[in-house]
Amino acid sequence: MTAIWSPEARFRIWFEIEAHATEALAELGVVPKSAAKALWDWWATNPAIDVAAIDAIEAVTKHDVIAFLTWVAEQVGDEARFMHQGMTSSDVLDTCLAVQLARASDILLADLDRLLEVLERRAHEHKLTPTIGRSHGIHAEPVTFGLKLAEAYAEFKRNRERLAAARADIATCAISGAVGTFANIDPRVEAHVAAKLGLAVEPVSTQVIPRDRHAMFFATLGVIASSIERLAVEVRHLQRTEVLEAEEYFSPGQKGSSAMPHKRNPVLTENLTGLARMVRSATIPAMENVALWHERDISHSSVERYIGPDATITLDFALARLTGVMDKLLVYPARMQKNLDRMGGLVHSQRVLLALTQAGVSREDSYRLVQRNAMKVWESDGELSLLELLKADPEVTAALSPAEIEDKFDLGYHFKQVDTIFERVFA
Amino acid sequence: MTAIWSPEARFRIWFEIEAHATEALAELGVVPKSAAKALWDWWATNPAIDVAAIDAIEAVTKHDVIAFLTWVAEQVGDEARFMHQGMTSSDVLDTCLAVQLARASDILLADLDRLLEVLERRAHEHKLTPTIGRSHGIHAEPVTFGLKLAEAYAEFKRNRERLAAARADIATCAISGAVGTFANIDPRVEAHVAAKLGLAVEPVSTQVIPRDRHAMFFATLGVIASSIERLAVEVRHLQRTEVLEAEEYFSPGQKGSSAMPHKRNPVLTENLTGLARMVRSATIPAMENVALWHERDISHSSVERYIGPDATITLDFALARLTGVMDKLLVYPARMQKNLDRMGGLVHSQRVLLALTQAGVSREDSYRLVQRNAMKVWESDGELSLLELLKADPEVTAALSPAEIEDKFDLGYHFKQVDTIFERVFA
Amino acid sequence: MTAIWSPEARFRIWFEIEAHATEALAELGVVPKSAAKALWDWWATNPAIDVAAIDAIEAVTKHDVIAFLTWVAEQVGDEARFMHQGMTSSDVLDTCLAVQLARASDILLADLDRLLEVLERRAHEHKLTPTIGRSHGIHAEPVTFGLKLAEAYAEFKRNRERLAAARADIATCAISGAVGTFANIDPRVEAHVAAKLGLAVEPVSTQVIPRDRHAMFFATLGVIASSIERLAVEVRHLQRTEVLEAEEYFSPGQKGSSAMPHKRNPVLTENLTGLARMVRSATIPAMENVALWHERDISHSSVERYIGPDATITLDFALARLTGVMDKLLVYPARMQKNLDRMGGLVHSQRVLLALTQAGVSREDSYRLVQRNAMKVWESDGELSLLELLKADPEVTAALSPAEIEDKFDLGYHFKQVDTIFERVFA
Amino acid sequence: MTAIWSPEARFRIWFEIEAHATEALAELGVVPKSAAKALWDWWATNPAIDVAAIDAIEAVTKHDVIAFLTWVAEQVGDEARFMHQGMTSSDVLDTCLAVQLARASDILLADLDRLLEVLERRAHEHKLTPTIGRSHGIHAEPVTFGLKLAEAYAEFKRNRERLAAARADIATCAISGAVGTFANIDPRVEAHVAAKLGLAVEPVSTQVIPRDRHAMFFATLGVIASSIERLAVEVRHLQRTEVLEAEEYFSPGQKGSSAMPHKRNPVLTENLTGLARMVRSATIPAMENVALWHERDISHSSVERYIGPDATITLDFALARLTGVMDKLLVYPARMQKNLDRMGGLVHSQRVLLALTQAGVSREDSYRLVQRNAMKVWESDGELSLLELLKADPEVTAALSPAEIEDKFDLGYHFKQVDTIFERVFA
Repeated sequence: MTAIWSPEARFRIWFEIEAHATEALAELGVVPKSAAKALWDWWATNPAIDVAAIDAIEAVTKHDVIAFLTWVAEQVGDEARFMHQGMTSSDVLDTCLAVQLARASDILLADLDRLLEVLERRAHEHKLTPTIGRSHGIHAEPVTFGLKLAEAYAEFKRNRERLAAARADIATCAISGAVGTFANIDPRVEAHVAAKLGLAVEPVSTQVIPRDRHAMFFATLGVIASSIERLAVEVRHLQRTEVLEAEEYFSPGQKGSSAMPHKRNPVLTENLTGLARMVRSATIPAMENVALWHERDISHSSVERYIGPDATITLDFALARLTGVMDKLLVYPARMQKNLDRMGGLVHSQRVLLALTQAGVSREDSYRLVQRNAMKVWESDGELSLLELLKADPEVTAALSPAEIEDKFDLGYHFKQVDTIFERVFA
Repeated sequence: MTAIWSPEARFRIWFEIEAHATEALAELGVVPKSAAKALWDWWATNPAIDVAAIDAIEAVTKHDVIAFLTWVAEQVGDEARFMHQGMTSSDVLDTCLAVQLARASDILLADLDRLLEVLERRAHEHKLTPTIGRSHGIHAEPVTFGLKLAEAYAEFKRNRERLAAARADIATCAISGAVGTFANIDPRVEAHVAAKLGLAVEPVSTQVIPRDRHAMFFATLGVIASSIERLAVEVRHLQRTEVLEAEEYFSPGQKGSSAMPHKRNPVLTENLTGLARMVRSATIPAMENVALWHERDISHSSVERYIGPDATITLDFALARLTGVMDKLLVYPARMQKNLDRMGGLVHSQRVLLALTQAGVSREDSYRLVQRNAMKVWESDGELSLLELLKADPEVTAALSPAEIEDKFDLGYHFKQVDTIFERVFA
Repeated sequence: MTAIWSPEARFRIWFEIEAHATEALAELGVVPKSAAKALWDWWATNPAIDVAAIDAIEAVTKHDVIAFLTWVAEQVGDEARFMHQGMTSSDVLDTCLAVQLARASDILLADLDRLLEVLERRAHEHKLTPTIGRSHGIHAEPVTFGLKLAEAYAEFKRNRERLAAARADIATCAISGAVGTFANIDPRVEAHVAAKLGLAVEPVSTQVIPRDRHAMFFATLGVIASSIERLAVEVRHLQRTEVLEAEEYFSPGQKGSSAMPHKRNPVLTENLTGLARMVRSATIPAMENVALWHERDISHSSVERYIGPDATITLDFALARLTGVMDKLLVYPARMQKNLDRMGGLVHSQRVLLALTQAGVSREDSYRLVQRNAMKVWESDGELSLLELLKADPEVTAALSPAEIEDKFDLGYHFKQVDTIFERVFA
Repeated sequence: MTAIWSPEARFRIWFEIEAHATEALAELGVVPKSAAKALWDWWATNPAIDVAAIDAIEAVTKHDVIAFLTWVAEQVGDEARFMHQGMTSSDVLDTCLAVQLARASDILLADLDRLLEVLERRAHEHKLTPTIGRSHGIHAEPVTFGLKLAEAYAEFKRNRERLAAARADIATCAISGAVGTFANIDPRVEAHVAAKLGLAVEPVSTQVIPRDRHAMFFATLGVIASSIERLAVEVRHLQRTEVLEAEEYFSPGQKGSSAMPHKRNPVLTENLTGLARMVRSATIPAMENVALWHERDISHSSVERYIGPDATITLDFALARLTGVMDKLLVYPARMQKNLDRMGGLVHSQRVLLALTQAGVSREDSYRLVQRNAMKVWESDGELSLLELLKADPEVTAALSPAEIEDKFDLGYHFKQVDTIFERVFA
């Protein structure tokens, strides 16, 4: 990903844009065919891009594209003077950015594919591993660890679709001249360059490609980053000492703390939590970039010089890191079961509530009956058993037999639709 | 739009969700068919929703859905006890939010359609109205006012597609029980309610519908708001005293300033600029809502209570206001022409540059020749004429005849591709 | 807090500004003294403000201040025509906003005082209540619950100072006329109004008070909100089922969940977490408001109409709620001790490490010795005891006697500086 | 500024923290005095920091501070084992960050001083240069260019005070051990290190220095950036072709556009506009960093690794650039006068309004009389003269003599309080 944003990569894309454009101009008879040939012949020698030389010219001209064209002319010779005919710098800069963001998207899409692959594998591995579902951080009812992973899978699948849409939004080519009127350049040049670079034609540009496209792109990265944060926070919760249902892989030589030798910290997912904040922070500047003045001002440029590389490189790194974490995540089913059991069966309270209602007890009375026993278990910190208390409560047993009550404490009951859900998610 | 977010509208949607669910439960034999019938029979009487009564119950139970169910039970009678069987509050709350956001989207889509209609009409009206194109706020080359509007049209067309995608993202139904396992409710209930409400089924939920959907939705509103800002800023620029190429409609009785009677201020578009900042500000909180803890916490709720109504109502208002502004915008072609002419023909400099290049002068020399004359015009503040200076410059006339130079100062030259662009945008 | 932002309150402040200004103008001989007298005489009758009537006038004039002045003139009579002499609307609007934000600050400062009081009391109550300190969510070393509260106290004490500074920043008065030159109004009028309203004089204004002041104000609210989030997240963590060291107060009649009767959820602190996101979201729009065009545009106004009330009312509510949570927080020292003990003494590992080093073992060897025993305890999930394992490790006992090792497992050792810290924080 | 954030600078600060701490520990008799001496003796040799070697160790230990300590131990020898006694990594990392941010603040304060110096000089230079004041981008009443600069001066003066406060907020030292209890290190060590490094003592820390301090710091940078944007936008407006009252300095060899040789674009201030967006974007992540879990998690770290250098380096660059722009700004008083005159005297409308009122005409009538003449001038685009129209309006001349009317068109009238304002700002 870093390579996409190197000066050399940028100059290479610039050259291709200029050369493809010259080719089209030659085809249209605007410039000699020899001009395009000269450019491609030179390119075929696989020349090194002398970034320092171009920078030195820019120091004088204070204009990056002119500096680049000057340097290319020095290499290619006289025929190079036909380059950039009728074009404006932004034609090169914005089309180049489109290529870079499209390439960045391809890497991120591949990252997402790898993450999805890992999530799918591990979801199936733990499809029926029982664990407690928690709302508000409080034990609720049983779920499976595979379901948690299936949720993550579905979320990143949506993110994949969003990114594909954002890629399409961003991947346009504009070669329309100084203020987008094609006054000095035929639209067919744009069409040719677009086709060669795998871009769509920008239907109407000013001097620049409109920035609502980029705003949408970076907002989409922000949403993906937020999903990363969600899964990272889940792992951090699972690893905390009192829960310890899963852990980031801890390599033998690793030291968790310089002061406390016993520690194994979820540092990768904590790191991901921070990285998510960073990727997200590109959203607002990208939106502030939309309202350029008239046919353009250049305020967007300094913003994009940061967020272009930073947001894509950080997200690439974060997706890869998350994939690694999920791939090697140490999962502890025994501990999950232990936690599931620790509340004295409180997690089954709703089933009893429903059973009482179905046995003809009013909803209000059912709630009261379950709650008064549940609260005793709660206050005993799981030492008392809800099952035993219910079986000893005459108001309850008046409606339900002991066997009927016991039946409500069956874990399998909760998982009967897991297949259906997996079918929906992975089919 | 405000109606969507009223307590009464919310309770009406809640009822429909509960009644449709009861209907499906009856179909499955879980509850008596009489239960569903009782609910719908009561509903057919078109009962008023007593918001105050429900609030009074909530003050005791401290739980909104329970308060609502209690109140409905008071109205419907005994059969109502079968409502909400196996469901969790979030099933109601989140599905309701999906309905509200889908309805809000429909209003916003209609807003966009009206704006697009106005922009298209006015773009064609001014398709060939010449005006100066500006980059960096500096005169560049001629464009037409219609092109500016075509750009706005294309941008809001993209926004329409994005909003349609965001609507699809948000419009899902979850009736999956306490932690999303369907332990106590058949998935067919969810399918039934979804179909009745025009929603998709949420493939996998926790206790809630995952918040990446909402983050994407509000981020999309933020992008649309940024496009509004762009067009608003354009109008503000055009109305400034020195430019005055267009003005917001100013009604006869209106007072621009309590102190300065002569003023006609672009207050609507300034207002839109501020509103855009507000809509955009919902993006980050919506993204921060994604990482709920485990199967859910309720931190998203207070955020959504603000941004749900605020962002949609503000955007609805802003789109309508922008539509009004563009519909009635006073456009001054004569002033546009006057501004276009005021730089002594500098706007034609690039054409001369190209002509010199094509006449065999090196790019560097051509640039130097044009620049030295252009700078004189610039420093004369448009008193000198570039055309006259060029015709008097022997180095220039060595390459181009006076007639050839004059030919480069033709305005029509710049507009020969306007048809092509309009074709691309409006076809 | 809501009262500050009511239309009536706003009109009352407007009147006071106008009346004080008229008074000063009369003192300077610009307007008749009878004019000021007429205004104050009317005011002394404690007249009701007819908001609807003013709104009706505004519907025609489309200008709020003119509408207000017209209405006052209708009440006061002919003498009222001397009001607003040489002033511009913004003189009234911005000075009014300064009064509102200063009043809002006073309420928020009082909120902070109450919170500080509660935190101080509870910090002393639990000054020596042992609890496990956690880094990365993993047990580290013992702290006291009072220390946690002392940290919160110190943080909110800093926030109090920041808010006091922000209040001073925002509380300025500008009565400087159309573009801030005092062309039509003597600066002594401004000085008089400022003194009467308890504001400082704005040293140099444009048409408006510069918005960097407001940006700093709302950014400060954002920081305070972030501190609220921190304490709220701490409570949420402490209440989670597996930790349960503290709980939000749960009133007898309360229902935690419609489906799960056993639940007691930290809903107040989850709510605070969401509210913090909202208050924070005012920061960026407030900063975007700074760059008004030239001597002012009105884009800031629509933003402030939202964030002025929303951010202050929400923060007021949040501070009061947090104060309530902390005041009534149920704290469970026995559970804290149980959690502290559950890791088999791992929390004392660093002390042993230090003791080994001091006994002449190299740092690397000490680390290795402690880690190899600590890892066994870790993997036993606290079933094994670090103390016992160390006493059985010959390499350890070669350096430290059993008594020396035992001495390192003393809890009191960790709390010997608590007095010092409390002294620093509360002195 | 970049130097502050280099790995070498960081390691140098780390060493100083460790060496000062060892010194204090030696003084307290915890470690041998020879240990501190060995460290300082080595340091006195001005040793190069081998960043690559430290990185290589970190690649194995996966812990940066341990890697650093190991490398120092290799250089210093056996005595180095007494370093870091009782400390935790965060003691080093956070205190180092405090030193870095304090140094960064010092550079930024010096930047602000230079900017203030330039603004003060140029404000006095143009103290009485007349120019039109604009509200809503529309001509309002005359101001002086010096007043605009005085406003900027006052704003950046406020920013200087805010930054000084933020520096004090951030510049604290924490050497308090694993969870902030000083269990294994005497508070006097912290006091000693703090004094040596010019920091305050952190009254109560967890494992880390609380992040509300950093949030306040970055929020303050965001406010400063917003002020930069304001002044940058002002220059951009002044340079636009139709206004052209001022220009960024344009060096002889510079090329404004590759396609349009005549252009002189405000690229520096456009660039500043973008940079302001970036600096501002650090605010929210810094606020999101506040709510670390329990005694700390490490999610803040990845955020600070970006925003620490990025926000300070960008702001430093931006302040220097803005200072350069303002220092060399080309100011065109003749053009200012020309623009001032172009509205046919409309800028004097308010004075006439006041004069009519004072001559006994009702406010409503006065407004109507002025407005009807002003609108004619407005519609003539400044071809008609307000003065002439008023002198020809019998209703006006019934109240004011021609001489009285003419008197209201005196420019000097508007500037009579400029001295007072300058006194307030610069005294």
